[in-house]
Amino acid sequence: MKNFTYHNPTRILFGKGRIADLDDHVPDNARVLILYGGGSAERTGVLDQVRTALGERTITEFGGIEPNPRYATAMKAVDTARQNDVDFLLAVGGGSVIDATKFIAAAMYHDGDAWEILTSHGSVVGKAAPFGTVLTIPATGSEMNPGSVITNEEKGAKLAFMNAHCYPQFSVLDPEVTFTLPERQIANGVADAFVHIIEQYLTYPVDARVQDGFAETLLRTLIDLGPRALRDPKNYEVRANLMWTATLALNGLIGAGVPQDWSSHMIGHEITALNDTDHARTLAVVLPALMDDQRDRKTGKLLQYAANVWNINEGEDATRIDAAIAATRDFFETMGIETRLADYGVGEAGIDHIVSALKDHGMTEMGEHGAITPEDARRILNAAA
Amino acid sequence: MKNFTYHNPTRILFGKGRIADLDDHVPDNARVLILYGGGSAERTGVLDQVRTALGERTITEFGGIEPNPRYATAMKAVDTARQNDVDFLLAVGGGSVIDATKFIAAAMYHDGDAWEILTSHGSVVGKAAPFGTVLTIPATGSEMNPGSVITNEEKGAKLAFMNAHCYPQFSVLDPEVTFTLPERQIANGVADAFVHIIEQYLTYPVDARVQDGFAETLLRTLIDLGPRALRDPKNYEVRANLMWTATLALNGLIGAGVPQDWSSHMIGHEITALNDTDHARTLAVVLPALMDDQRDRKTGKLLQYAANVWNINEGEDATRIDAAIAATRDFFETMGIETRLADYGVGEAGIDHIVSALKDHGMTEMGEHGAITPEDARRILNAAA
Repeated sequence: MKNFTYHNPTRILFGKGRIADLDDHVPDNARVLILYGGGSAERTGVLDQVRTALGERTITEFGGIEPNPRYATAMKAVDTARQNDVDFLLAVGGGSVIDATKFIAAAMYHDGDAWEILTSHGSVVGKAAPFGTVLTIPATGSEMNPGSVITNEEKGAKLAFMNAHCYPQFSVLDPEVTFTLPERQIANGVADAFVHIIEQYLTYPVDARVQDGFAETLLRTLIDLGPRALRDPKNYEVRANLMWTATLALNGLIGAGVPQDWSSHMIGHEITALNDTDHARTLAVVLPALMDDQRDRKTGKLLQYAANVWNINEGEDATRIDAAIAATRDFFETMGIETRLADYGVGEAGIDHIVSALKDHGMTEMGEHGAITPEDARRILNAAA
Repeated sequence: MKNFTYHNPTRILFGKGRIADLDDHVPDNARVLILYGGGSAERTGVLDQVRTALGERTITEFGGIEPNPRYATAMKAVDTARQNDVDFLLAVGGGSVIDATKFIAAAMYHDGDAWEILTSHGSVVGKAAPFGTVLTIPATGSEMNPGSVITNEEKGAKLAFMNAHCYPQFSVLDPEVTFTLPERQIANGVADAFVHIIEQYLTYPVDARVQDGFAETLLRTLIDLGPRALRDPKNYEVRANLMWTATLALNGLIGAGVPQDWSSHMIGHEITALNDTDHARTLAVVLPALMDDQRDRKTGKLLQYAANVWNINEGEDATRIDAAIAATRDFFETMGIETRLADYGVGEAGIDHIVSALKDHGMTEMGEHGAITPEDARRILNAAA
């Protein structure tokens, strides 16, 4: 096991009816800015639950935060926050709304050009407004981590930042608010969480029993319950387990003390940049091809994954690894997610573009060994064609 | 899954050489009181590592905190802290030293009789001195939770308290400091952590996949590595996995959203009160008998435990449950821990005394259903004779 520091101060308020408990966790005299995305938060009644819980507090609202949240939109919210002397932010939505809220919280107190927050990857952040979240989409884990990704269309850049001031003070996870999510969002969320776990698990063994066992538990839960969540959308227990799994998939716990990969994410980001394919779907395209391509570097963990996640114990090593990769691809397909570049209209020219973009963005040493180059990514993408 | 709130702000500094990082986590101008137990912290060099890391800070030291830490001793430390205008506490030791430190931290700022902290179970605590820990014995989990147990010999009482102000700010977990622990302390620590997990796991199913899978991972890790830790005391990976397992066994994570039992602890405490048997050993006596006695209430989870922890999948339900209970007992015995009351000199009169003590202490509705009475405990103790 590698040395690690683990610290996660976010308070989780989990279960039915917990939105009402906002009243206990938002300061009594707070001037609150509620941030949300499209119309679903209003339509589903979640925003009304939030307004009721906040009672007599001074509330300003800011809607319209996009998927892959935009810098320009976030900066408008910063203006709104300043104009209304807001001192507490409340994100109501999925990962995009929460990511934007983290950036807004930091930008509110940033002197100078807020773009520095992103170009410095968060290192210039010395203070952020306190904020909480009401999660509506189990997927990204942003509700219990300090990371955020913001897209600047003007500059053609999508940058991530992270800062310890950007942990949510609390996150409300009520599985019932996910009952009305479109199938596509549930499927994407399951795939996103699945690959988050894989990025921290499927590297090389460092005898981290606890982290491995926890990761395998989370993967098995997604495999078992992901399809059931689609078939039986109002099953509380299924949605509750998925919601807690997606949060634990990226809250620092399973990644503590182990090597991490993240090359599927790096390559996938460039597919989204190319043609706006859903983030989770890009991961489902890249991951099976990457597993196959990197099988010599990942042999030990691929065999462990085959045995402990898929119960594949028979046959030669290569056979078991093949079966585990095929099972992974089948799982995504069962969730309604296609796993070939062609399914998303990406051909040879697209692959050329992605490889160039990886070079342009300095993604020349990807993966847990820093050994995957853009030309390796080309080979992987060709295999995913 | 039941509704739950999960919040754990303790920062974990895990790995080789991390004691040196105290310098980054204790305030620069702190006046520190170092608290420790017997002579081992000095002998093993841990205290010297701590002193070196704290550098020029003003240090006062207070040693001699006992196993099952005493109220009178803790109050002496409170006096020492006040006399030296201490503003940061640093526990260097195992669960007893850390438990005492939590009480001292709360008592330093308590007006009136500090015994109220315990009789109120912590509800009167409104402030506590900040403190960190350097863990030397993996066992109780106190390094990452807000609970503490203090014994008042004068009043003949052993009381627990818990308060959110009593989370350690940080805990240093360096597995190398456990290399020199006596076998008995390693064995006790493994048994203690094992039963902590069981108390939160072996109740009735509420479809909490994540919590169950995490608990099973921790149990399997203890079963696999506990005996290896005795055979091969300087194996870093073994000690590292045990140390992280014992912390996660009682930091709130696996107990979030599930029913909890704790009757083995309630009954075990009275055995310790009777004849000072090591806490962990009392648990190893009570648990197998309690599993057998409560098999009708715990059938679902006993079968799951048999399959997922012990890989027992053949035979009738009763046969598999018998095998899982036998395996549990064998595990403790393999660790050198005897599992019969007679092994600790407790006979019929002792059992009478324990049953009376449970009644006197109001332990009349124990277990996850509140259905275990002192007379049920008598039956369990007779089976453990």
